[in-house]
Amino acid sequence: MALYVKKFGGTSVGSTARIEAVADKIVAARGQGHDIVVVLSAMSGETNRLIALAEEIQQNPSPRELDVLISTGEQVTIALLSMALQKRGCRARSFTGSQVRILTDEAHTRARIREIDCKSIRAELALGGVVVVAGFQGTDENGNITTLGRGGSDTSAVALAAALKADECQIYTDVKGVYTTDPRVVDDARLLRTITFEEMLELASLGAKVLQIRSVEFAGKYKVPLRVLSSFEDDPGTLISLEESNEMEAPIISGIAFTRDEAKITVAGVPDVPGVAHQVIGPVSDAGIEVDVIVQNVSLDGTTTDITFTVKRQDCEQAQQIISRVAESLRARSVFVDAKIAKVSLVGVGMRSHAGIASKMFKTLATESINIQIITTSEIKISVVIEEKYLELAVRSLHAAFDLALDPVA
Amino acid sequence: MALYVKKFGGTSVGSTARIEAVADKIVAARGQGHDIVVVLSAMSGETNRLIALAEEIQQNPSPRELDVLISTGEQVTIALLSMALQKRGCRARSFTGSQVRILTDEAHTRARIREIDCKSIRAELALGGVVVVAGFQGTDENGNITTLGRGGSDTSAVALAAALKADECQIYTDVKGVYTTDPRVVDDARLLRTITFEEMLELASLGAKVLQIRSVEFAGKYKVPLRVLSSFEDDPGTLISLEESNEMEAPIISGIAFTRDEAKITVAGVPDVPGVAHQVIGPVSDAGIEVDVIVQNVSLDGTTTDITFTVKRQDCEQAQQIISRVAESLRARSVFVDAKIAKVSLVGVGMRSHAGIASKMFKTLATESINIQIITTSEIKISVVIEEKYLELAVRSLHAAFDLALDPVA
Repeated sequence: MALYVKKFGGTSVGSTARIEAVADKIVAARGQGHDIVVVLSAMSGETNRLIALAEEIQQNPSPRELDVLISTGEQVTIALLSMALQKRGCRARSFTGSQVRILTDEAHTRARIREIDCKSIRAELALGGVVVVAGFQGTDENGNITTLGRGGSDTSAVALAAALKADECQIYTDVKGVYTTDPRVVDDARLLRTITFEEMLELASLGAKVLQIRSVEFAGKYKVPLRVLSSFEDDPGTLISLEESNEMEAPIISGIAFTRDEAKITVAGVPDVPGVAHQVIGPVSDAGIEVDVIVQNVSLDGTTTDITFTVKRQDCEQAQQIISRVAESLRARSVFVDAKIAKVSLVGVGMRSHAGIASKMFKTLATESINIQIITTSEIKISVVIEEKYLELAVRSLHAAFDLALDPVA
Repeated sequence: MALYVKKFGGTSVGSTARIEAVADKIVAARGQGHDIVVVLSAMSGETNRLIALAEEIQQNPSPRELDVLISTGEQVTIALLSMALQKRGCRARSFTGSQVRILTDEAHTRARIREIDCKSIRAELALGGVVVVAGFQGTDENGNITTLGRGGSDTSAVALAAALKADECQIYTDVKGVYTTDPRVVDDARLLRTITFEEMLELASLGAKVLQIRSVEFAGKYKVPLRVLSSFEDDPGTLISLEESNEMEAPIISGIAFTRDEAKITVAGVPDVPGVAHQVIGPVSDAGIEVDVIVQNVSLDGTTTDITFTVKRQDCEQAQQIISRVAESLRARSVFVDAKIAKVSLVGVGMRSHAGIASKMFKTLATESINIQIITTSEIKISVVIEEKYLELAVRSLHAAFDLALDPVA
């Protein structure tokens, strides 16, 4: 008998038929004697529909009023799911963020959760009811409706699981779990049964978009076991665990992440003096542009160096304008921009204790004649930037070279 | 400088373009220095769309969850109108029923307002803001969302006007106001500038569907001056006043109401003993069927009498089945049913002090060879039931006979 927080995303509640299917899943879990708290997103497309209405009126509407508007999406789904549960003879009760009371700060449209009052939820669970909570939303101290930003329902679920000390926070999505890499690129990509929080953070941030990174951080911080599983299939999915696997044959590499929506900017021949990296990157991040990879190699001539960084492709033009001005003031030799790049990363906690992973990676790419433009590494990750057209080839050959299609336990 | 509560119905906020038009109206009123509290319905069709979603899941969903669901409709429009006002440089703030705090009883989907906390509204008005309140909804003492039933937004507006002691409660609709009769039937039907609450009650209940009868009763009880006017035209509309007009030439008849969706059932030859009317009507109203006109004439033979009543046409079949059983147990002589009837009513407070209204009505109908089947009267109303096919002819000839097209003041 456990307490589970189960979160269903927009696709899983995208129609009344799907809401009925969710109800079936919950009734089954309830039948096994578990206590269930459900967290729901809005029906898929609904939040965008509401935002489009707002934008018909005003391009940048008041964040407070935007929150009043878009928080209705989840209010609709919690009511509908409660009805579907009641139809099945299952006691259920819906709660908006204000009703639970999920207290947040006042930062409308991107609020942070401060505190969750578990009283009313516990009372309903004690009566044998399923508690159905609107994700993505809360209330500030003055009773204003707030929302947590995109993907906020995952955060709501993890926060509720932490506050209730739930046994597991289960995130239902339209995929079966976390794979060794994107199955659309590699046919024999394998579903991972377990993965560590650190690995998940690296995989999520690198583009395997299964979970919102913020909720993974949050779950790690509060030690909430997190499970990703499919709304549409009966499969245990992937458990994101607090500890590394103890199995003898634990894999060295968990997965391969990649992204193709970046662009690379190099400032060549800048003075090799303290503070120069800040002078280059500072103005870019001041403009609100997210910088991903940053590489600076050692100076060979002792007086100048080259700095390369990547940004989202959509920010490339703006970043280039900023960097042109910076380059001029620094008397840099030149600026190169390349938008046709892709980044491929190997991720795995096993990497820490195994030498040779990097060289095997480089050799594999060399065998396919793929030139590496940039290399960066962290404790559990190696990333390379390559020409975009080689992306699929690189991912497939690495997936094969590291035997990721094989189940290491089997 | 006055305080106005302005209520806009679903058609008036049916699109973002219409919401912008409402914002223009409000900014204009604000520009004249008035304090404004706006009460909104959901976009037209939205409440039905939400109910249809619920019914896809369950035919009779939990009223509590239905309220959670359908209350989102007004939450959408208050956010959108607040944005439209802010775009025009007008300070504005939305409030849900829970946020105001409109406290109701616990009768979900048909709750009654108990109390309104005006603190936050007054604070916002004091800051120069327009207050935008979600109509139709409230909260019970335990924080559950409640709704007031169809037309509840009118009730919300009147209740807010009463609580705030507003100078006027203005109900914006898609008609210009209250007419002497339905302009679709009588070309020269005249817009009434003023009408008393009593007259409005009789006209509303008899089919001139401009205002919800409950809100009119409510406004009368709390002495809130009520004005009906068009969302789409600039016209003062009709003021529903607390007092009869003092003008010398005040009209005797204010208007002609009519309805064609009724059916007539007669039980002939029932025993003329105490309690027989109850024995006939009781089972019908016990079945939840609304009974309108009831007529029992004096017994001519001293032992039996005839009872006639009307019900909504859609309830006719069910009422007939009930009455057949009743007739059998009472050994009534026979039961007649006629669904092809219409009811026409003259309404006017002036009627009280003027004789001859009834005879003029009957004479007018006789001149057109229209046979009267039933007559009922009240202090300010005379109703007749006639064959349905004569309805338009009857209304037009009465409208002309009582000179209703002429402005009595002019």
